[in-house]
Amino acid sequence: MYLRRALRSLSSRTRFFGWRPESFLMEARAGTLLTSSSISKALGFRESFFWGSHGLHDIRYQIDQERNSPAEEPLDPFSLVADELFIIANRLRAMVVAEVPKLESAAEYFFKMGVEGKRFRPTVLLLMASALNMPLPHSVADGVFHSLPNELRSRQQCIAEITEMIHVASLLHDDVLDDAETRRGVGSLNFVMGNKLAVLAGDFLLSRACVALASLKNTEVVSLLATVVEHLVTGETMQMSTTSEQRCSMEYYLQKTYYKTASLISNSCKAIALLAGQTAEVPMLAYEYGRNLGLAFQLIDDVLDFTGTSASLGKGSLSDIRHGIITAPILFAIEEFPQLRELVERGFDNPEDVDVALDYLGKSRGIQRTKELAQEHANRAVKAIEALPYSDDEDIQTSRRALVDLTHRVVTRTK
Amino acid sequence: MYLRRALRSLSSRTRFFGWRPESFLMEARAGTLLTSSSISKALGFRESFFWGSHGLHDIRYQIDQERNSPAEEPLDPFSLVADELFIIANRLRAMVVAEVPKLESAAEYFFKMGVEGKRFRPTVLLLMASALNMPLPHSVADGVFHSLPNELRSRQQCIAEITEMIHVASLLHDDVLDDAETRRGVGSLNFVMGNKLAVLAGDFLLSRACVALASLKNTEVVSLLATVVEHLVTGETMQMSTTSEQRCSMEYYLQKTYYKTASLISNSCKAIALLAGQTAEVPMLAYEYGRNLGLAFQLIDDVLDFTGTSASLGKGSLSDIRHGIITAPILFAIEEFPQLRELVERGFDNPEDVDVALDYLGKSRGIQRTKELAQEHANRAVKAIEALPYSDDEDIQTSRRALVDLTHRVVTRTK
Repeated sequence: MYLRRALRSLSSRTRFFGWRPESFLMEARAGTLLTSSSISKALGFRESFFWGSHGLHDIRYQIDQERNSPAEEPLDPFSLVADELFIIANRLRAMVVAEVPKLESAAEYFFKMGVEGKRFRPTVLLLMASALNMPLPHSVADGVFHSLPNELRSRQQCIAEITEMIHVASLLHDDVLDDAETRRGVGSLNFVMGNKLAVLAGDFLLSRACVALASLKNTEVVSLLATVVEHLVTGETMQMSTTSEQRCSMEYYLQKTYYKTASLISNSCKAIALLAGQTAEVPMLAYEYGRNLGLAFQLIDDVLDFTGTSASLGKGSLSDIRHGIITAPILFAIEEFPQLRELVERGFDNPEDVDVALDYLGKSRGIQRTKELAQEHANRAVKAIEALPYSDDEDIQTSRRALVDLTHRVVTRTK
Repeated sequence: MYLRRALRSLSSRTRFFGWRPESFLMEARAGTLLTSSSISKALGFRESFFWGSHGLHDIRYQIDQERNSPAEEPLDPFSLVADELFIIANRLRAMVVAEVPKLESAAEYFFKMGVEGKRFRPTVLLLMASALNMPLPHSVADGVFHSLPNELRSRQQCIAEITEMIHVASLLHDDVLDDAETRRGVGSLNFVMGNKLAVLAGDFLLSRACVALASLKNTEVVSLLATVVEHLVTGETMQMSTTSEQRCSMEYYLQKTYYKTASLISNSCKAIALLAGQTAEVPMLAYEYGRNLGLAFQLIDDVLDFTGTSASLGKGSLSDIRHGIITAPILFAIEEFPQLRELVERGFDNPEDVDVALDYLGKSRGIQRTKELAQEHANRAVKAIEALPYSDDEDIQTSRRALVDLTHRVVTRTK
């Protein structure tokens, strides 16, 4: 029963990425856990893992030239970086497997890539790395340390790994339940694995992310991603504790959404640009792309929570509204039907209130306006890519088109 | 009822530091929480806080020359750095107060210093900073960046703050309860404040620690303290999941104790030395001091869990053994009374088993041998200080004597 609830909760969180929690849990039950691994051995692996990543210099993203000739064939952004994604996923998985066994099942789960596995954040970051792979202006290039191309790519892959670790850690910690929630019987992965283990698994990933960050020896990048962790906490806190006025404020909602969703991808995009030695407007454009893509992504996520795959209201999991979390569709609907506000203030503990709210939402333009706002952010993301310094390099052009393509996918997805 | 349990649990954790949880919780109930603080304002404060710490350059530790003339008068290590400790505590407190109000009551509590307040870790670190405040050998000094003395002190204070934040974050996360534990009614601060808030407050402190670390712009130090966070997780995991054999192994216990207690103080001592520009044996001696002091501290803590202030068995809180956590006194007792092993394997869920174990412990030399082992580590810590390069500077000598004095206090303390 708990297991089914947990799977439902997880499926809804991970639907865009095509992960398959079911297969993992079946394997976990079938006993695929490592039975022992001495701590000192684990530490040995641990150190060689990050510091030894230079051994992977020669892995670079490959474009299938035949399938994706510029400006004609449809692009699949994910397949463009598939080889690298595969390596990154395996590297993260190997790192987890080498660690304390008790954390393994918890953390490995998130890094296991199924057949349909797609990794949104690492894909964006690797494409961004390729999109910015252009010679530095002379004025900049003279003053900076030059990484060898392979070394640079390896460092940018490291950013993708760190980003994924921070993301998964935040998922684990966000799901930790209050005692009150446990009593209400709300399901989550942590209800199955235990709050304490979820906290430790998240801490473990965060600490690995810090160690990996430190190994990049770039204090601006360390500072950028440390601030992201702060933003994730701030966003979660904003969601936990709101006054009635804040819950009905679009500004508050967008700020929270930036902290919870867009900060990680925007700042890691910026980190990719900084590692490439870019200064001034390029890191800012990379940031702008990530920020707007992240916001568009979350706005559509909020729509899908109401509609699911079917585009009809009430077919989504409704998990936000049932937890009293107010998102953009309802906020827009309030503008047309102020009487919704009273329901929002009551917090949706009563399931009938959810039905009434859905009625109002259906009569309003809430869903439509949310989609329009998402499209607006997607357009801004496209503009950021278009504003990058011109390059006639084919790989760079292909990667930029893939980043633009991702913005379309984000706003048109139905799952 | 829960409140009383939580206070008991906390008092036992914080007894050495003289914190007073009671007064905080009374104030919290009396409604001292900040009622509002806009996020952007909070972020504004946040940035100026760490980056602006240079404004405190002129605060250095002062020795009361009259009361502590070298090699004669008794030293109080805590009073030697009292002014700086006060500033650090206030700075940490101000930082927390400026943040999201919902986290404030949780985090501020830990940084509030009562009249008797003593801060073990920051004291050690500030004394270590003074103890190493000697000219660098020419071969080293030529190659490194020279901080101004005040700037160096300010950076070392920052290490003390970061260490305290990491320590408090680990306390908060260690106390997060599994659902199973909640059902058994085990008390902790988190039972009062909620698991979720405890996780967020810990994450908040960890992320602030990372941002502060990044601001030091020393990648070796970043890496050192990031590894400490990993060790804390590893230690906690080792405690959670043990085979019967591991639970009866002194080696496993000492390794866990290093990760959980000694790693933070030893590596932050090393960081103090690295910031001072010391290389080769000095950072290693600083590390050795911290490591042995930390191990001695924890061994005595384990004794006090059985004896409390009275030195008679069973007068302590017995919280370890009641949670099935096996520490050095029992491990030594098993060597004399192998039949204890069976009780250990049963896990002490039955309170009668605790009484039987106490009987065996009383007949054994377990407590005595634990104290002897603590003394051995204290002696090694003293040796590390004695092995530091000679200096005839009075301040340096006084600080070193204070560090030696701390090793005596750690092994002779009764609370």
